[in-house]
Amino acid sequence: MQTGRTPMRSAMGRSDATTITVQGLDLCSEVLGTLNLGDFAFLEITGKRPHAHQSIVFNAMLATLVEHGMTPMVMAARLTYLGAPESLQAAVAAGLCGIGSTFAGTAEGAAKLLQAAYQAPGGAAGSAAEGASTSAEDTAPSEVTIADLAARIVAEHRAARRPIPGIGHNLHKPVDPRTTRLFDLAREHGLHGRYVALMNAISAEAERVAGKPGQLPVNATGALGALCCELAIPWQLCRGLAVIGRSIGIVGHLAEELRNPIARTLWERTEAETSGVDEASGGDQL
Amino acid sequence: MQTGRTPMRSAMGRSDATTITVQGLDLCSEVLGTLNLGDFAFLEITGKRPHAHQSIVFNAMLATLVEHGMTPMVMAARLTYLGAPESLQAAVAAGLCGIGSTFAGTAEGAAKLLQAAYQAPGGAAGSAAEGASTSAEDTAPSEVTIADLAARIVAEHRAARRPIPGIGHNLHKPVDPRTTRLFDLAREHGLHGRYVALMNAISAEAERVAGKPGQLPVNATGALGALCCELAIPWQLCRGLAVIGRSIGIVGHLAEELRNPIARTLWERTEAETSGVDEASGGDQL
Amino acid sequence: MQTGRTPMRSAMGRSDATTITVQGLDLCSEVLGTLNLGDFAFLEITGKRPHAHQSIVFNAMLATLVEHGMTPMVMAARLTYLGAPESLQAAVAAGLCGIGSTFAGTAEGAAKLLQAAYQAPGGAAGSAAEGASTSAEDTAPSEVTIADLAARIVAEHRAARRPIPGIGHNLHKPVDPRTTRLFDLAREHGLHGRYVALMNAISAEAERVAGKPGQLPVNATGALGALCCELAIPWQLCRGLAVIGRSIGIVGHLAEELRNPIARTLWERTEAETSGVDEASGGDQL
Amino acid sequence: MQTGRTPMRSAMGRSDATTITVQGLDLCSEVLGTLNLGDFAFLEITGKRPHAHQSIVFNAMLATLVEHGMTPMVMAARLTYLGAPESLQAAVAAGLCGIGSTFAGTAEGAAKLLQAAYQAPGGAAGSAAEGASTSAEDTAPSEVTIADLAARIVAEHRAARRPIPGIGHNLHKPVDPRTTRLFDLAREHGLHGRYVALMNAISAEAERVAGKPGQLPVNATGALGALCCELAIPWQLCRGLAVIGRSIGIVGHLAEELRNPIARTLWERTEAETSGVDEASGGDQL
Repeated sequence: MQTGRTPMRSAMGRSDATTITVQGLDLCSEVLGTLNLGDFAFLEITGKRPHAHQSIVFNAMLATLVEHGMTPMVMAARLTYLGAPESLQAAVAAGLCGIGSTFAGTAEGAAKLLQAAYQAPGGAAGSAAEGASTSAEDTAPSEVTIADLAARIVAEHRAARRPIPGIGHNLHKPVDPRTTRLFDLAREHGLHGRYVALMNAISAEAERVAGKPGQLPVNATGALGALCCELAIPWQLCRGLAVIGRSIGIVGHLAEELRNPIARTLWERTEAETSGVDEASGGDQL
Repeated sequence: MQTGRTPMRSAMGRSDATTITVQGLDLCSEVLGTLNLGDFAFLEITGKRPHAHQSIVFNAMLATLVEHGMTPMVMAARLTYLGAPESLQAAVAAGLCGIGSTFAGTAEGAAKLLQAAYQAPGGAAGSAAEGASTSAEDTAPSEVTIADLAARIVAEHRAARRPIPGIGHNLHKPVDPRTTRLFDLAREHGLHGRYVALMNAISAEAERVAGKPGQLPVNATGALGALCCELAIPWQLCRGLAVIGRSIGIVGHLAEELRNPIARTLWERTEAETSGVDEASGGDQL
Repeated sequence: MQTGRTPMRSAMGRSDATTITVQGLDLCSEVLGTLNLGDFAFLEITGKRPHAHQSIVFNAMLATLVEHGMTPMVMAARLTYLGAPESLQAAVAAGLCGIGSTFAGTAEGAAKLLQAAYQAPGGAAGSAAEGASTSAEDTAPSEVTIADLAARIVAEHRAARRPIPGIGHNLHKPVDPRTTRLFDLAREHGLHGRYVALMNAISAEAERVAGKPGQLPVNATGALGALCCELAIPWQLCRGLAVIGRSIGIVGHLAEELRNPIARTLWERTEAETSGVDEASGGDQL
Repeated sequence: MQTGRTPMRSAMGRSDATTITVQGLDLCSEVLGTLNLGDFAFLEITGKRPHAHQSIVFNAMLATLVEHGMTPMVMAARLTYLGAPESLQAAVAAGLCGIGSTFAGTAEGAAKLLQAAYQAPGGAAGSAAEGASTSAEDTAPSEVTIADLAARIVAEHRAARRPIPGIGHNLHKPVDPRTTRLFDLAREHGLHGRYVALMNAISAEAERVAGKPGQLPVNATGALGALCCELAIPWQLCRGLAVIGRSIGIVGHLAEELRNPIARTLWERTEAETSGVDEASGGDQL
């Protein structure tokens, strides 16, 4: 098989006795003390150092994904840590395994939808390359065109009885406050382009067609999907942002578990109840 | 079992229709656009917002851990992504599972060693509370005492024929440039206290006793362990910093894999060679 | 939310000082020394002890899934084991994370397709309950009807340009020898019912319509999907069989890695090549 | 680095168009329908087909490890499955990550202890090679010697205040019924050699010295460790047996979760209680 001899190359990083290079930058003099963690994540994912505006917005995007309270995935991580306290990394890995279609699917689904809308031959911006909106204002299609795209997308999803990714929230109505804040930051920093505009138009159209004003806001994952597009991040990597954010959140929960453990109580109660006994036996602790 | 009825509490985060609170801060107005990603990680792990000096040093610490080139763990992540491209999170989880005694053990080992040194009844700072060095200068023991601690630690490890965690590097000699940079940042920002001093003293003593000047520097994990102590982060959570950093690095490698894939070539070549055939069959692709 | 007070129950297992019960059986007297490992897996998944015929076929099905040589997932497991030899379980977990749409999707896809075919209102066996074929022969639809179902399924997949799950193999042509053996065993043990018949009919129809005789056999995952249906295992759990089989295979590869390690060589070569240097540096071994 | 050019070889399995070979056996004619799943696991781990006696005992050993009721690891797997139902393999991986020092450490610790006892220069069987007891009876040391070994092991652990791996159980006293059954099976099948004898002697000595008759039985992990030694399985792979058994058990719990889900209730209640509210909000379901 010919591909077996294809040379393999990577430009992520390398080091010798005195120098460590990451993505073409000298780690010690150009990264440490200069780039914050979100900036470095941007560099890793896109291969480029963020400018000041991108830095603010991208750090905010990642911060949106860190902490969501007592989710199933942090519960799984705490229970794993109970069983294997010597392997904190395995507890985080276990938690990450619970990122799935529900959450990450909607962020990447929104981004995919938006990138496809502008790349389609008949799309509003069919001539724009690569789905990137580097200079958002001047490439933004007219309001009319965006409304047309939104109408087509909403109609297609209604016809197929599929939910529109990035639209609606069980709790946050009539707006998701994270979306408001993220889009405000994007506007302030010049990253509020055609993808954000289309995402908002889809929400408005969905509410109009369904006759549910204030019920189908752009949720946080819709906002993130749109902003990934504005930053030219491929939709396949949206889920990577969730992974980064959640890793931090899970480590945070394990830090709280260390100070104030709940996993053993959770286990003992659950074992007792599911076995139909009043008192937990402490189980087979082998 | 009594503990079954212990109430379970968490203060990490909660939300209602209009507000999202994380660690007591309003996410939208106090975190997004204000805290960078490393700051938020600090908040998650310690429960406190970092001040400006802590922010610089902590972001640099995490950045040290992001990218180490083509390590076994990023190779594992890339191979996992080849098999399950729809589950980027699982590829990251697989990569994290390879953090183990080799790496994370030394960072946490160094922190544990340093925290124990100052907490031991006969230790230099037996009266200091909780291993935290909040005001480093005035609680730092005299140079003589630090030298005594270092001598005892080096002697104990030599007697037990155990390597000292955080000391020595296969490549970076006579100094690990990351250590130099991290300790410079710490000094500049007032976080260069007794733990950093002890770590440096251990390196000097180890080189002296072994007769190997310039061969046993404080390596990057030793520096990180010492700085975790300066920030009052328990040694058990040092590994959490590695997990956060590596998550970002793994996502970065998956982004490169998407642009410039190598996993299939790696698989085909390895399958052919280990089977003793010249050409890869492409394996059983089910 | 009302569901919060729903009692939680489990019938999987429990124990007291003298007795351990699993699925209603006494572990020591009714399982150990009596049920083999595949039988116990059947008991765990279906809640029923297999009869002798089911035991032979189900053990063979699982055995099909154990060993596939040097796959990406065993490579990932070996590399993870290199980094964390103290955590063999994490290496297996990393390997399992690489089970994805490619493999497991086709086994479960085939089962889903077959179960749907007989459950559809207009299906050949619309009145049969739950997709289980407990007494295969007398509920099997006539050959004509099966041919109709096969024709409809093949036509639908061709129209949608989607591959038919369980059909075709890159290497094994004109037949997949595992399918031949599994279906022979099923016939010998009375488990060769309407699902197997439909799977074979789909293959024949696909070859006929495509004009590719001997090119589109039922592959091993198609055989497994069909046999899961014969055993009344829901399609959602087909992937569980793959997980069980692969866990054993990955442990086997780690046993070989312990005797005859290759992961370090694989890493060093890959690091050297991807960095563009002739000799591996051994990397940053922290 | 020279090792970079070391050829990599594997003898686990290979396939061509018509033949699939695993460990030197033809999969279709020599494995499927012939070896049960536990036998195949033995083949994968040791490279040898088990004889009839080994088959019975090894299957029983693995069966001991499958089902332990509602443990933290199956809770973690169920919660992960709630978040990512499309990735059953990730839920199993998450569960396996919770195998840690508590469980797997004691089985491998017992095996390591026993293998070291007979390999030590001054050990009872210093001349025996490889720690394998292939013909148990004739190489078994005299009762006196075993008692000496047991006395030394117990004394060393008491002096170091370390628990003896494989001894004692929180629930099963004065005997662990699994140990009784496993050792009975071993006796019946000629696998009750010097390792089992030493494990029993350690228990007796520990109870005698501690003055706690009937309180320190050989537990199931001690029995498994001893039997791994009798089967010449290296202690490093004992944990692999746990991984195999637990994989099956976790898939079983996911099958029950599919029929009778509890994870959502567990999440909603836990979220409500840890937040200090009466009613669960259903969380941020993104």
